This record gives sequence, structure tokens and C-alpha cells, in this order.
Amino acid sequence: MNLIIDVGNTRVKVAVFESGKIVEVFIFQKEKIIENLKKIFQDFFIEHSIISSVASFTDKEIVEIDKLLTPLFLNSETKVPFKNKYDTPKTLGVDRIALAAAAVNQYPNENVLVIDAGTCITYEFISKNKEYLGGAISPGIKMRYKALNAYTSKLPLLERSKIDGFIGSNTNDSIHSGVINGVCNEIKGLINQYTSEYKDLTVVLTGGDTKFLEEQLKSVIFAQPNFILEGLHTILIYNLADD
Amino acid sequence: MNLIIDVGNTRVKVAVFESGKIVEVFIFQKEKIIENLKKIFQDFFIEHSIISSVASFTDKEIVEIDKLLTPLFLNSETKVPFKNKYDTPKTLGVDRIALAAAAVNQYPNENVLVIDAGTCITYEFISKNKEYLGGAISPGIKMRYKALNAYTSKLPLLERSKIDGFIGSNTNDSIHSGVINGVCNEIKGLINQYTSEYKDLTVVLTGGDTKFLEEQLKSVIFAQPNFILEGLHTILIYNLADD
Repeated sequence: MNLIIDVGNTRVKVAVFESGKIVEVFIFQKEKIIENLKKIFQDFFIEHSIISSVASFTDKEIVEIDKLLTPLFLNSETKVPFKNKYDTPKTLGVDRIALAAAAVNQYPNENVLVIDAGTCITYEFISKNKEYLGGAISPGIKMRYKALNAYTSKLPLLERSKIDGFIGSNTNDSIHSGVINGVCNEIKGLINQYTSEYKDLTVVLTGGDTKFLEEQLKSVIFAQPNFILEGLHTILIYNLADD
Repeated sequence: MNLIIDVGNTRVKVAVFESGKIVEVFIFQKEKIIENLKKIFQDFFIEHSIISSVASFTDKEIVEIDKLLTPLFLNSETKVPFKNKYDTPKTLGVDRIALAAAAVNQYPNENVLVIDAGTCITYEFISKNKEYLGGAISPGIKMRYKALNAYTSKLPLLERSKIDGFIGSNTNDSIHSGVINGVCNEIKGLINQYTSEYKDLTVVLTGGDTKFLEEQLKSVIFAQPNFILEGLHTILIYNLADD
């Protein structure tokens, strides 16, 4: 079994893979990473592992992690199964690297647009020639609600809500329409732009707002909430084979 | 001559109208409102005036303003030349009321979508039956750039910039694509939604980002940077005729 560890700013997502498939997913707070990894090591027979982290570890944490496992620490130097055509490949985030790896592994020889709807909405385009070309970064759903409240004097802070029609007839419905219908129009518009330049586009939706957006969008989109974990596993296997 | 005074949170925009047309526009900081109005009253022969304010005045300011002129203070009780079908008409902002008035005055018997691109992007729909139905509120261009920087740990704060293609191949271009191309797709998508329900839609673009967005959108849109001032003048005339 292989262990895939995706460390965010506050949350850690861990997946146990067996024969190329996820058999278990754990989610916990970053501060509890050592105790949780210890427990996972007791319960599963882990052979190889990879860590992707957007946050930094303390020296103590690194010593503890190395005692448990000798993971592959993903960074911009790690070998990946695609060509990184980003102008500044060293600044490409580890989560973006993982998404691109998942795209070339699961959809080889296809033009793939990966939409990761979380804190930000990121768009990553990987051509059928396995070239990562870049994409876009826009504010996520929750960020838009927060900004409307924080940067104006009168608008309330609202929670994500399904909309029913695009004409809001009161302040709250106007905000929901502006955020949710706005995000849907942004996504659909970008899909059309890519489709008109790259035929046979495959669109993958991932990130925390996957389920919510899948229902609102009503487009042909593959919802894959664990796409980053799948991509990290792809990178791990790619580097093991290479040794 | 009539004086139209639009008071924002930090800035005041004043227009002198003669025979229904703007002959002069002044913009100054809110703290300097009294001295600026005094000067305008020396230079122009003002008969009637209207004040729309999203900010509050001090008692001293109100006394000073009343010494100079007896303006119509626009609020949700003011008579307007359209039917307000908002669920909560008293919460409809004075700027939105002014935009709706401008729409029915300049485009009578047309379905009008007014897009005000400023701090927020607001969308107002006024039907050909002179009914204000509501719309949407989403974060403005500058707000999106600010939020991406403030609510993430690694993204830089960028200034508005024209884009050239929708695939950003470095972090800055990805952010510009996400914000500018995102806003354009949001606007175009919403115009399509309205057009499919309301034939012969007229689209008006106003607000601080008018000129910038007009160039980026390449759609059939009427750019009217002074639409709020025009709407306030319409309301003033409507109330004078009524007396």
C-alpha cells in the first residue's frame, strides 16, 4: 500500500492506495499530523509515500515524519509525467503539479481543463501532447462572499446557497446571483473559450465546491473530488518506476 | 441650471445640467463638499438640485447645505418614474434607484440591463413596462485582485491589466486572466441569459471600470460613464413636474 499526504494551510488529507485505487481517506487538522500518521502506520502496511505541502513543517515535524517513513517530498524539481511549459516552472504550486499529473494519467492523449474550486478557483490546461500550459486563478465562492462583505459598508456576509433564477429581487438573492451565477458563467465561458481553440476538451471539476457546482453547472464535466490525491499517487509511481 | 450631487463613501461627483444636458462635472473628496458647493454656486446660476448619498452627513454639513440650496434628498420614499418591484424596496440603494430612472428615461419601452462596474459589479434589470425587477451584485475588478492577495498566503496584489489570451503562463498572467477574463465571461454569460428571456435587450455599462471593460468586452454595449448623474437629473425633473 502507498500513502499519499496532501498538506494544506490548515488541513491534511491522506489517502491509502492499494493496487492503484484509493481504499481509505483521512482528513485532520495540520497540528495533529504526527499522531495521525503514527496511527495510520499501525493500521496499514505502507510501502511508499509522497508528501505535498503548501505549508511549511517545523524541524521537529520533519524528524518525526522521517522516523515513520522516507517520503518523496514533492517540489518543483520532482520528476513529473508531463512537460511543464509554465514561464516560471519553479513558482508552480505543488497542488497544480499534482492536478496536471492526474490529468495526463487519467486522460492521456486528451486536451484536459482541470477546474479546482476551493479557496481560489484555479484553471489548469494540459494539452493532448502532455504539455502543461497554465491557466487562470480567480476568487473562490466563499472568498467572493467574504469580499463583498469586507470591502463594502452595507452588504451582509452570506453563506453559499443554491440559486433559483438569475434575477435577485432582494439584496441577499442579488448577492447569491452575483456570486453563484457569476461563477457558473465564468466557468461556462472559459470552457467555451478552450473548446473553440482545442477540440475534444475534457473538463474535470475538483476541490471543495465540486458537488455544489456540479449541480449548478449542468454541463458535461467529470467531478473528481480526489483528483489531487490521484495525481500525487501518479507522481509517486512515476518516480518509483524511475529508480 | 440644475445641480446633481452624487455622494459616495469617499468621493463626491457633481454635475451642472443645462437644458437637460451635462455642461460641467466636478469630482472632489467628501470632506470638501461645502467649500466646493459654495464655489459652484458662485460660478453657476443654480435653480434646482438633488442629492443622492450612500454616506451620512454631519448635522453641521446639513445646515450648511440647506443654507446654499434646498435640495431634494433622494431616498426610498422619493417619487420615481418606474415601478419598484424589489421585494424590499426600502433597502434598494439610491445609486440603483438613479440607474433605473436613467434607464426608463433614455430607453423607454425597452428591456434594459444596466451594468455598473465599480467597487462591486451590480446588474439592474428594468423591463420595457418600466418595472425594476432586481439583478445581481458581484465583486468588482479591484475587489477581486485585493481578495486574492488578502485571503491567500502566496498570491501577489496586482493592478488591473489588459489581457492577451486566456491562458496565463505565469502566476501574474493567471491572476489577470482569472479576474479580467472571468469578469468578461460573467458579464457576457449574464447578457446571454437575459437575452434568452427578454428579447431586444439594451445593455448599458457604467461605473469606474467602464472604459477598461468596454475595450475588453467587444460586445454591443452602450458605455455611459455618467448614467447615475443622468438618472438623478431624471428624478429631479420628475419631482419638479409633479409639484
